[in-house]
Amino acid sequence: MGRIITLTTDFGLADGFVGTMKGVILSINPNATIVDITHDIAPQNVEQGGFLFANAVKYFPADTIHVVVVDPGVGSARRAIVLKAGETVFVAPDNGVLSLAIDNRRLEMGDSISHLQSPVQAVHLTKPSYWLPRVSNTFHGRDIFAPVAAHLSLGVPLQALGDPIEDWVRLSSCAAAFRAGNEIVGRVVHIDRFGNAITNVSAEMLVAMDRTRINVRIAGRQVHGIKGTYADAAIGQMIALIGSARQLEVALRDGNAAAALGSRIGDEVILMLDID
Amino acid sequence: MGRIITLTTDFGLADGFVGTMKGVILSINPNATIVDITHDIAPQNVEQGGFLFANAVKYFPADTIHVVVVDPGVGSARRAIVLKAGETVFVAPDNGVLSLAIDNRRLEMGDSISHLQSPVQAVHLTKPSYWLPRVSNTFHGRDIFAPVAAHLSLGVPLQALGDPIEDWVRLSSCAAAFRAGNEIVGRVVHIDRFGNAITNVSAEMLVAMDRTRINVRIAGRQVHGIKGTYADAAIGQMIALIGSARQLEVALRDGNAAAALGSRIGDEVILMLDID
Amino acid sequence: MGRIITLTTDFGLADGFVGTMKGVILSINPNATIVDITHDIAPQNVEQGGFLFANAVKYFPADTIHVVVVDPGVGSARRAIVLKAGETVFVAPDNGVLSLAIDNRRLEMGDSISHLQSPVQAVHLTKPSYWLPRVSNTFHGRDIFAPVAAHLSLGVPLQALGDPIEDWVRLSSCAAAFRAGNEIVGRVVHIDRFGNAITNVSAEMLVAMDRTRINVRIAGRQVHGIKGTYADAAIGQMIALIGSARQLEVALRDGNAAAALGSRIGDEVILMLDID
Repeated sequence: MGRIITLTTDFGLADGFVGTMKGVILSINPNATIVDITHDIAPQNVEQGGFLFANAVKYFPADTIHVVVVDPGVGSARRAIVLKAGETVFVAPDNGVLSLAIDNRRLEMGDSISHLQSPVQAVHLTKPSYWLPRVSNTFHGRDIFAPVAAHLSLGVPLQALGDPIEDWVRLSSCAAAFRAGNEIVGRVVHIDRFGNAITNVSAEMLVAMDRTRINVRIAGRQVHGIKGTYADAAIGQMIALIGSARQLEVALRDGNAAAALGSRIGDEVILMLDID
Repeated sequence: MGRIITLTTDFGLADGFVGTMKGVILSINPNATIVDITHDIAPQNVEQGGFLFANAVKYFPADTIHVVVVDPGVGSARRAIVLKAGETVFVAPDNGVLSLAIDNRRLEMGDSISHLQSPVQAVHLTKPSYWLPRVSNTFHGRDIFAPVAAHLSLGVPLQALGDPIEDWVRLSSCAAAFRAGNEIVGRVVHIDRFGNAITNVSAEMLVAMDRTRINVRIAGRQVHGIKGTYADAAIGQMIALIGSARQLEVALRDGNAAAALGSRIGDEVILMLDID
Repeated sequence: MGRIITLTTDFGLADGFVGTMKGVILSINPNATIVDITHDIAPQNVEQGGFLFANAVKYFPADTIHVVVVDPGVGSARRAIVLKAGETVFVAPDNGVLSLAIDNRRLEMGDSISHLQSPVQAVHLTKPSYWLPRVSNTFHGRDIFAPVAAHLSLGVPLQALGDPIEDWVRLSSCAAAFRAGNEIVGRVVHIDRFGNAITNVSAEMLVAMDRTRINVRIAGRQVHGIKGTYADAAIGQMIALIGSARQLEVALRDGNAAAALGSRIGDEVILMLDID
């Protein structure tokens, strides 16, 4: 019964919204263990939410229930969904915020790229008996997502919560990178506060490659080689390296790479293997 | 014994004060489940604390113990109190910060307005054996409120903690709105970061009324009708609507209503039913 | 097995680092009770981390496991360590961040100053089998400290985690004050947001002294007597008093003492007993 429920939102901690969600969860399952991942996602920034969530999710037990509420479409026709991948359950608005976490998971499970579109159990939340009696137009975190997660933690099966669907939203800017011939094609998924452009190309994709012979193309510029650490670059030099989330990032030694490049979230990043 | 204890304070999270209170609670009851509502109440802003707390409290289980420490009078002669309403217990300085939560609760319980002053069990905390051995002049959250909440969670009865009182402080700016003839009389209880003036007039008070025929008088201005959402107003227009806390608020489409109105927390708001 | 693990870091709450550490801990011990002390230590400020941690730690149960990660040397040759003092266990980088907490503890246990260097069990963490399989260069909080704390909470003994050491780092700016003849010699350990210069001289050290006859020497200035509260000073006057952490601080009534004194963390503070 002490199942873990994580919360990732853009609600901030000041207004009591997160505390309220916890009250709803504990009213339904007093034994749930609730863990905050972050509540400081930039308001309505689905890409950033998807990235920071995906970084954290792999460090939780397999049977964790993850609630992610970055929800610019709240009150509109956007669907609320539950996904289940292995034992792990995800509750979120259907806007792609889960894409990267789901894709990362499959890559870690050893799926080949060609199976990336293989099925995950998905349900459209349509059964109000698992929601709060009164649903607002603006706070589905409290009224739908929190109670659904709590009922799931008590053992309610996915199918009871709504209708199975296949077409849940994958957000390309939140998708995993993929390999095509001698290229790896990815995207910028996060600009951190230092201006580093962090991509969805994971260290795993570079295993067995000669990192000194990889060229990284980003925002019309080319960066040669993948270095070990920031200190391997001269001041003012642009470098590519693997960051703490074990993903490729492009940095400017003692500067702001994203500003210098004019790079934004969603920008394509291409790694070319120099094979001559 | 895994009873829930919530914390609402103006301590912020940076200095370790909240962590310290949790250490005190868990030292007394290792099985308490502690939930933060918010610690970002503006320093010593009793009205704001009372409002944000009242919004959250109704989503917690009935037997929750709530600790609210917004305490400008700490170290003075102000009393520390425990209130009990039904199974719910509240621990706080006696400065009215609990008024709105208690009043809301009674309204939800179906009390008629005339019973609003009906008794709640109240105790003035006077028994130092339930406090930390050494009580500072500045941090009763740690020295009195946290240990008292922990002892309550172990089953210590209210009467053991001090002397029964009747005259605990009700703060008019934290009281519920009331109906008088064809008018509902309320107050501004919160100005949010967008400048929306949020009142203590709950959606429940408007049930069965024709919302298009209600006039809202605030800060010398009159707003006609209660709309469904911000988008129902023209840019620059002042509107009244029901917000996510299910309370009436006055907003300025794409602007700052409180600044435009010169409206402040505590200002009277009157709803007049157009009955001709 | 519901042992308490506290977390004190300079990671902030925005990026999900703290949530990730909790995922790691709960993956190893699902029954751990995790409590945040603070995550808003100024980046890499070991002195401030040591001070705020030491203030909080004494309010936790004796068998708590404390994790403190303020770690400017992460990725360098600095050691990761575990200390055990009585039943209390501390996990941290070996940079002195634990000094003040350990010294305070001994003073409270009644150790005389001459025993301040008496042994505490200390182990250099060298056994990767208790870490995450892959250790990054930048995030030992996730990869080493969190899993070690979780294993300790399951009963793994200190000796299993690495090699015993004696020479763990004491940071003089984080050490306890000491008495030498008619003087007490301490340091400034924290400048709070009001500019108060908080020292490591605890109220306990002043017991049985006539506080009106103590002179405090700080940054070349002399302050006469130790007062009860800020209000005991005239506006613009410098005073010494005991603050809420029960440590001597120097304040400027309605002003910024540290700025006026040019005082910084680490500055020596000497209390002289006027014994004529």
